[in-house]
Amino acid sequence: MNATPLPADQLCPIARSLAVLGQKWNLLLLREAFLGRSKFTEFQRIGVPTATLGARLEALVDAGLLERHTYQEDGERPRDEYLLTDAGRDVLPILAALIEWGETHRPRPAGDRVSYAMATPDGRPVRLEFVDDSRAVIDGGAVTVARLRR
Amino acid sequence: MNATPLPADQLCPIARSLAVLGQKWNLLLLREAFLGRSKFTEFQRIGVPTATLGARLEALVDAGLLERHTYQEDGERPRDEYLLTDAGRDVLPILAALIEWGETHRPRPAGDRVSYAMATPDGRPVRLEFVDDSRAVIDGGAVTVARLRR
Repeated sequence: MNATPLPADQLCPIARSLAVLGQKWNLLLLREAFLGRSKFTEFQRIGVPTATLGARLEALVDAGLLERHTYQEDGERPRDEYLLTDAGRDVLPILAALIEWGETHRPRPAGDRVSYAMATPDGRPVRLEFVDDSRAVIDGGAVTVARLRR
Repeated sequence: MNATPLPADQLCPIARSLAVLGQKWNLLLLREAFLGRSKFTEFQRIGVPTATLGARLEALVDAGLLERHTYQEDGERPRDEYLLTDAGRDVLPILAALIEWGETHRPRPAGDRVSYAMATPDGRPVRLEFVDDSRAVIDGGAVTVARLRR
């Protein structure tokens, strides 16, 4: 008597998020945007093939996560740069959670000296925690996913 | 004079996390595990094809996110069930961040009445926040990604 399941991308906000964010490179490009990169040549440094990079940046603009602006340096022709929108900035907790899980459960290969962390602009380290309505920190072991029907 | 970039999966904990978690279905299967599903037939309800489901569950066991146990119901033959490991439980903030982003920026299609939220077992709603070392909540707008070299 089970109803036919809905397509997963309709059933769940996780799937709806991954439809945008799960594409290869997208989260890494957003990471670079948080690091202050905005120009095509700056995004290239992560190793994304040039042909792919243009398409990925366009997709992030179309999805509302980056905004295209024009800039011009002395004597150069105008070029595009890509800045985080509010929806793009709201990806930060996803990046933070992925960074924390990766650093804990998939340690860096030997010789890889680069890592990432979350911090305030003055360099104070911050981390993600679950908090309740009174802003008290709740142990993650005491939290689970609830399925709601409205 | 740029050095050849390292493969992205070595350069970054985000990429290392996505190598496991970014595979289609994996995060949705982990969501189901947090909802208390553990049996093959229970995981089937999300609409993953049966042939794919076996392979995805095996991959999550191999990656250390689920643990296989045997259970037996009266008169039935023994069957496998799949329970979250500690590394699997640590995926919760990633799911929470994806749920929050999806509910905010990719609203449910009309007619879809199912949503997900994070809660304590007694039903108190919780949410993710950035906190500093003194457990004070820091506004997300004042947080960014820092790149560290060690």
